[in-house]
Amino acid sequence: MANDFNEAERAAVYKAIMLRRDIRRQFDATPIPRDVLMRVLSAAHHAGSVGFMQPWDFILIEDRAIRQRVLETFLQERDRAANLYEAPRRELFLSLKLEGILESVLNLCVTCDRTRGGPHVLGRSMILETDLYSTCCAIQNLWLASRAEGIGVGWVSILDPAQLATILGLPVHVVPVAYLCMGYVREFPEGPELERAGWRQRIPLSELVHLNNWENRVPQWNL
Amino acid sequence: MANDFNEAERAAVYKAIMLRRDIRRQFDATPIPRDVLMRVLSAAHHAGSVGFMQPWDFILIEDRAIRQRVLETFLQERDRAANLYEAPRRELFLSLKLEGILESVLNLCVTCDRTRGGPHVLGRSMILETDLYSTCCAIQNLWLASRAEGIGVGWVSILDPAQLATILGLPVHVVPVAYLCMGYVREFPEGPELERAGWRQRIPLSELVHLNNWENRVPQWNL
Repeated sequence: MANDFNEAERAAVYKAIMLRRDIRRQFDATPIPRDVLMRVLSAAHHAGSVGFMQPWDFILIEDRAIRQRVLETFLQERDRAANLYEAPRRELFLSLKLEGILESVLNLCVTCDRTRGGPHVLGRSMILETDLYSTCCAIQNLWLASRAEGIGVGWVSILDPAQLATILGLPVHVVPVAYLCMGYVREFPEGPELERAGWRQRIPLSELVHLNNWENRVPQWNL
Repeated sequence: MANDFNEAERAAVYKAIMLRRDIRRQFDATPIPRDVLMRVLSAAHHAGSVGFMQPWDFILIEDRAIRQRVLETFLQERDRAANLYEAPRRELFLSLKLEGILESVLNLCVTCDRTRGGPHVLGRSMILETDLYSTCCAIQNLWLASRAEGIGVGWVSILDPAQLATILGLPVHVVPVAYLCMGYVREFPEGPELERAGWRQRIPLSELVHLNNWENRVPQWNL
């Protein structure tokens, strides 16, 4: 066994994982220094990818006029989504803070080039979505590295990807996977925003673990 | 700014990110203690998820007869994939070690329940795949936590998801996202297997960073 992590290092990795939050408020105005930004982008770039295709790109959005356009597509889609709920859940939905597009010092769109690596990417012959999966692994790396840097990251998913692609000038073979708001934060909340707001609760882990077959759950493990 | 990570903790997070590898060989026979397994599954479960839907489940596969069936579907799909390449790339492809299904002490299938959270999941109204994206973030958490524990993880993507779903008894609304081979390893390789084998090289990060618009790359940053 080659475990080259000591107890303190292992604890630090879990600390980043457990204290990572989806941030939409309390952003600080302090700019992110370029070397720090490089570190978190490099963390993303060091995710594994199927066939080592590295399908991701990183579009940094500093321009406020562009962000304003993204905010408009958010507001449009949020209002459309609100109509899916009935009172009082609709009011709860509308009361939630779901983006920090203008409040954060930086927006970042992580994209996936669906053609990178050519037509026959190793390991992608059966599951075409593996390029998107790899991109999400890169995003999680960035999220955790940011947490360790004291930078909050919020993933805004209430956006029309087609409109976003137009705003950012993406070629047709490149899709936006995540639109992220980033910045130093004054405080990381103790728990997930939606849990604190009473939207949903965390599922006990024991309900999600199965042995050998879906039908065989292992609650006796007392996970 | 609330940065509650000191320099050593931050370095440990980057260490896990940079030294994480996709492992298919050199697995040790030592079983993974239940408390360690719980920690890495809990790390996965603490990923963010759109609308806090937590769409993932974890199927631990210890049974060797089940793994043998999974291996057979791998071999079938690998041979099919090999025909997509011409010599000498075909021979290189076939020489690569692409799975550790029987050599590892544990296999783990991470699934995504596409119906969890009901028909109107917050933040999923525009991008239906956000549940799959969340599941991949959970997988990356598990991968990094495992690395910090000295446990190697290898993602086997050359599998037919329909056959895998049959073998594991998945309901129709649950899809397999990742099939992972896990175990303590004697040594983590220095670089990605496919890079070392000469399959593909790492793209310079500077080629992947854009400012405000896709067309505007920022090589002058010397990332």
